[in-house]
Amino acid sequence: MRVFSTETHTTKEILQRKMSETIDVSATVSTILEQVNTQGDSALYQLTKDIDQVELSALRVSTEEIEAGMSSISEDLLRVIQQAKENILAFHKKQVREGFVSTDSKGLVMGQRILPLAAVGVYVPGGTAAYPSTVLMDVLPAKIAGVEKIVMVTPPSQAGTIPAAILAAAKIAGVDEIYKIGGAQAIAALAYGTETIPRVDKIVGPGNIYVATAKRMVYGQVDIDMIAGPSDVLIVADEQANPQWVAADLLAQAEHDVLAQAILVTTSQRIVTEVQTALSEQLEELPRQAIAQESIETNGKIILVRDLAEALELANRIAPEHLELAVEKPFDLLGKVKNAGSVFLGNYTPEALGDYFAGPNHTLPTEGTARFYSPLSVDDFVKKSSYLYYSKAALSEVTEDVALFAQSEGLDGHARSMTIRMEDPQNDFS
Amino acid sequence: MRVFSTETHTTKEILQRKMSETIDVSATVSTILEQVNTQGDSALYQLTKDIDQVELSALRVSTEEIEAGMSSISEDLLRVIQQAKENILAFHKKQVREGFVSTDSKGLVMGQRILPLAAVGVYVPGGTAAYPSTVLMDVLPAKIAGVEKIVMVTPPSQAGTIPAAILAAAKIAGVDEIYKIGGAQAIAALAYGTETIPRVDKIVGPGNIYVATAKRMVYGQVDIDMIAGPSDVLIVADEQANPQWVAADLLAQAEHDVLAQAILVTTSQRIVTEVQTALSEQLEELPRQAIAQESIETNGKIILVRDLAEALELANRIAPEHLELAVEKPFDLLGKVKNAGSVFLGNYTPEALGDYFAGPNHTLPTEGTARFYSPLSVDDFVKKSSYLYYSKAALSEVTEDVALFAQSEGLDGHARSMTIRMEDPQNDFS
Repeated sequence: MRVFSTETHTTKEILQRKMSETIDVSATVSTILEQVNTQGDSALYQLTKDIDQVELSALRVSTEEIEAGMSSISEDLLRVIQQAKENILAFHKKQVREGFVSTDSKGLVMGQRILPLAAVGVYVPGGTAAYPSTVLMDVLPAKIAGVEKIVMVTPPSQAGTIPAAILAAAKIAGVDEIYKIGGAQAIAALAYGTETIPRVDKIVGPGNIYVATAKRMVYGQVDIDMIAGPSDVLIVADEQANPQWVAADLLAQAEHDVLAQAILVTTSQRIVTEVQTALSEQLEELPRQAIAQESIETNGKIILVRDLAEALELANRIAPEHLELAVEKPFDLLGKVKNAGSVFLGNYTPEALGDYFAGPNHTLPTEGTARFYSPLSVDDFVKKSSYLYYSKAALSEVTEDVALFAQSEGLDGHARSMTIRMEDPQNDFS
Repeated sequence: MRVFSTETHTTKEILQRKMSETIDVSATVSTILEQVNTQGDSALYQLTKDIDQVELSALRVSTEEIEAGMSSISEDLLRVIQQAKENILAFHKKQVREGFVSTDSKGLVMGQRILPLAAVGVYVPGGTAAYPSTVLMDVLPAKIAGVEKIVMVTPPSQAGTIPAAILAAAKIAGVDEIYKIGGAQAIAALAYGTETIPRVDKIVGPGNIYVATAKRMVYGQVDIDMIAGPSDVLIVADEQANPQWVAADLLAQAEHDVLAQAILVTTSQRIVTEVQTALSEQLEELPRQAIAQESIETNGKIILVRDLAEALELANRIAPEHLELAVEKPFDLLGKVKNAGSVFLGNYTPEALGDYFAGPNHTLPTEGTARFYSPLSVDDFVKKSSYLYYSKAALSEVTEDVALFAQSEGLDGHARSMTIRMEDPQNDFS
């Protein structure tokens, strides 16, 4: 792990980050999108055969397959998934908002309504990155928002199957339809609709470069969530932090992916040293050692700072996806956090608690985008619509003013649409 | 204006829409973005010379220029702009939301904070499409959100100037910095920052195809609002509607742009006939006749329906930017509206009232995207950040469950970050 110090390194040196390589797959993805758009289901079967080497007999996952998935999961795990669901629902229900209205005595009514999206697509990656926890995190806020149709897509294994835990999580979360289709072709199906797969209003969920590129390309014809990059954590630790726990949390991040980034910012030289030792020790015992080690060596950083104010300044510059405050008085620092997807306060709040269980969403802005993006929430599954009503009396008071404004912009037709309503005494519709 | 009837046309025929032509300017835009990213200000001067044929002496609009702009506007217009500002502020203040927190007796605290974006860029197009009303609509929600730095960019005229009304609106709305730069180069400057122009967190505002393409390309490195397409209105009119007023409102939409779309959906054959006559008459007197006429002829539609239920079904399918309900009991229909940016209720609420003055935002989802997008609002200028705290007692109760969930996903490092905290009796940090 590279070690920096604000005494001896510039902020620029400290912040420098290897950007994740993005190969340009837009030509391939563009062809796939077009193919699905024009040929529908038949393109989906063909692409799944060509790309995933699977000959599907049906796109949709059957009720039997889902039931079989459910019953192959241990009761203990089902109970935990169920409890996680309850916690996630409880947290996200607090995000629900009401519309508003304002009225006045002149006969003026205006307001804003909040309406659920009609249909949402959830992409779930295949292989080892198929996480039932992500199914819960992506689906449950949509359920709370009142989305009527939630469609899940996920690539099949070479045997044409979907992991049991994914099916179980989908069933528990309340997914309405599941399809065995992945990659850019799945995004195309959700964006355009096919004979079998319904067109949706928004597509959420992480995926590989083909999925991300496809999402970016269909953005505007359909809404998308953020484009997820490699995951990251920044841990701020003071003298009282436990180096073993800090190391464990850094490794939990690093085991995701060689591109994942684990950063420690500490005021304590002792922590710098002891965390490095703990990392070496714990790495030995980690099943995903190879991945974690490469992530730590390539992207990991330990930054020694003068004080916690400096630590927070750095954290705000980096805008981490996850920010752990392993300090004596974590709540003292919360108000200083400007840019972070999710904040974990104190020694007993490891990120994993939030990844799986506590309630806040784990779909969070990565690669410094916490500067402007937010955790996935109920807000992502609703839209707003404003409304306006003026009585004749209310309109007559402002007609000239609005007409003047419109004329100043050279839009006489706009002005005329105001004044014409005051001209015609035979037509009194008040 | 083409006339359809649900008696004799299929929904598909009725809904068919000429999609707006999108020329592919991505290669040009890509080059411009790269140029500004690497060469900063000097690229901005060069590109403005090459593209806008203006040799600027400074990028930033001076205080003197802004004052001169203010004093060249009539007092009457200033008063109206000021009143519009008050109305817009009053409406948008109702969108402000608070964070939340939940606690429990085991020592568990979690919540969500709402934080303003630090810096926002507002693009204002040049030429005849430079609308002071849009400055108000794009800037004021950001002010309410608490954005500290609002930067406006707009292309200079060949004399190197910015329209007085734009400068006045910017001053009244509270823009912090104004720069004479337009096109893709302006978007690049806001996305990457230059020596003079600060990098922002989000770029809003309409623009031509170069601007829209640049926004799409920088999306992710910076947030953007929706990509605005041609404006549209859908008017639902029953027997009691005033054909002259309906025609005036259709023309107000049509005068924007030949690509603008004005649609009338009515239950009354009389309205169909009389609106057509009124359109012809009113077109004669319209200064922007040529534009409006082409828009009406190419994109305009009159659709005769059996009843209001059918009218609303069509409206929801079309998902208009503006929906006028020129019917006897407009509030009866409001709850049936699923997809519309902004709804104008009754005979005395022309769209122009909302475009300029009443309070709701006029930056609205176009081209059917009201299915999933919302009017610009205070929400667009804040981000959310969640936080989580568990006491030792609270953590100990769930450690095994969370570890089990993590292990089921093959993430032992995550599981270990939970269990390690229960292992070490010497380190009691509770």
